[in-house]
Amino acid sequence: MAHSDQRFIIGVDLGGTNIVVGAMPDDGSRHYALRSQPTMAEKGADVVVERISQMIREVMAATITEAGITRKQFAGVGIGAPGPLDRERGIVIVAPNLGWKDFPLRDRVAHEVGLPATLDNDANCATLGEWWIGAARGGRAVVGMTIGTGIGGGLVVDGRLWHGASDVAGEIGHTTIDMHGRRCKCGNYGCLEAYASGPNIAERAREQVSGDGDSVLTRMVGGNLDLITAHTVYEAAHAGDKIALDVVKETAAFLGAGVANLLNTFNPDVVVIAGGVTQAGEALFEPLRAEARRRAFRPAFDACRIVPGELDGAAGVVGAVATFRQQHPHVA
Amino acid sequence: MAHSDQRFIIGVDLGGTNIVVGAMPDDGSRHYALRSQPTMAEKGADVVVERISQMIREVMAATITEAGITRKQFAGVGIGAPGPLDRERGIVIVAPNLGWKDFPLRDRVAHEVGLPATLDNDANCATLGEWWIGAARGGRAVVGMTIGTGIGGGLVVDGRLWHGASDVAGEIGHTTIDMHGRRCKCGNYGCLEAYASGPNIAERAREQVSGDGDSVLTRMVGGNLDLITAHTVYEAAHAGDKIALDVVKETAAFLGAGVANLLNTFNPDVVVIAGGVTQAGEALFEPLRAEARRRAFRPAFDACRIVPGELDGAAGVVGAVATFRQQHPHVA
Repeated sequence: MAHSDQRFIIGVDLGGTNIVVGAMPDDGSRHYALRSQPTMAEKGADVVVERISQMIREVMAATITEAGITRKQFAGVGIGAPGPLDRERGIVIVAPNLGWKDFPLRDRVAHEVGLPATLDNDANCATLGEWWIGAARGGRAVVGMTIGTGIGGGLVVDGRLWHGASDVAGEIGHTTIDMHGRRCKCGNYGCLEAYASGPNIAERAREQVSGDGDSVLTRMVGGNLDLITAHTVYEAAHAGDKIALDVVKETAAFLGAGVANLLNTFNPDVVVIAGGVTQAGEALFEPLRAEARRRAFRPAFDACRIVPGELDGAAGVVGAVATFRQQHPHVA
Repeated sequence: MAHSDQRFIIGVDLGGTNIVVGAMPDDGSRHYALRSQPTMAEKGADVVVERISQMIREVMAATITEAGITRKQFAGVGIGAPGPLDRERGIVIVAPNLGWKDFPLRDRVAHEVGLPATLDNDANCATLGEWWIGAARGGRAVVGMTIGTGIGGGLVVDGRLWHGASDVAGEIGHTTIDMHGRRCKCGNYGCLEAYASGPNIAERAREQVSGDGDSVLTRMVGGNLDLITAHTVYEAAHAGDKIALDVVKETAAFLGAGVANLLNTFNPDVVVIAGGVTQAGEALFEPLRAEARRRAFRPAFDACRIVPGELDGAAGVVGAVATFRQQHPHVA
């Protein structure tokens, strides 16, 4: 049973595929009433706002019952959404996966549920969440990377997100590691994302497996290489498949070079890597650390933990709660 | 004539070749009594400390006369030296150009002259100096790069140096831009420094000019390609030499990729580039900005000025004064 004076915050993780909503007390001790629903962005922004608001109401009701609290203990709603955003004005500037342009998401949700709300980039939220109650706890200078369809990231300094001069800070996926290399979907050549995002991991596996009927990978997809995903690669690697292990090792080298660049410029004490890629486990992290060690200055490498994220599916919600909490500090 | 209550600070710029010392009032309005002498590191650390101390005494005497102040208006000495350093303890950990290991430079100088002293990395000092009274004035998130024999750098956030978890922050020269590229003298492959430092600019020019007797470059060095330096390349470029212009343009592309990585991760509002390379002028800066624009996110590029440093030869002294000033704020 929570204290009757404890603040609760609702977190909303808006993705192209799913909306996840949950509530947490201000101390981050646990989460309540985690709900997930398909986004169905194709039905338009109004429907998505209505869906989010309905989920928030349900989560509040369930939390009131579960935690034995009152409605006025809810301080507000933190929202994490794909960028680029105008944080100040609470606007989603462009979200290709949602089909949105200049949509005032923060104020629409705040109005619907009658609570203050904040809006921040999803990868920023995830990094702050890992700092708050995840793998980056205690870090003074934290770099977070989230590896999925793309590679996003965030920087947390002394417990506060570093947004930079125009809210772009942390776009680690679009740093160049090979300036004459692969074309990235952003239009440039040699971005980290062009090598180490989920789809590019799958693509590199397809290139290597092609024509090798013997690979576990080929068998896993019944010979249809189009069905290979990053997840297939991690599973095949766990099964000891040589090609999959090679692809994971290469991925580690690319990520290690990207991480080393961060170590030498920003000199963090924690780099936390989240997303599907962490399924590869130590088969990824061991060579990744070795590559970072090779490329970074020794005192920079030695000062930094390079660790997988701990928050998994709840990372977005936890991070959204953490960003609200940061922007609306509790005044006792 | 300075106010009788105005604080003065002495700056020491210790390099492998020269020691430069000068004094400045706390408001940075001008510098006094700038002196330069050869370091003569081969004579040993004790001799270097004695030389620095003697120069400080001379600068103080000259400033007392020139500015009409008293000895007690000197608050202390800021020292900038090549890293890696242990700032906390005021120790030069390793300085290959000086032949030093674990040398307590700060306290030795402080003891000799009877004033408090601070020690920081030379590239950090230069960046803080440019923020204080140079090209990065007014910047809230500043990245500085100093391009000479090596490529150093520093980060200044809200007027304070960001040192990172182990004083390595800002080592921009050793970020990877081409992970399968040229070997760097740090042992890695594809560091920015391996392409765009002074000696590597000269080396690329030698590679391209080799066998082309017609180049202005070849004539400038009387056919002896070993004599080509980065400075020769900038002069030949100003004279319109095609090969030299190509080398400058390539240098701009390498630096532009490195700068774009900083824009996308740190999202600064100023990038200030200092050192010999700025002699190439707009022949360098125009294609450098174009490459950064091509590779960085648009809002990151648009939010950032990319400018040459303004402090030239005095940058080290100004920066050393700025770091002392920051660590010993004036209490009126």
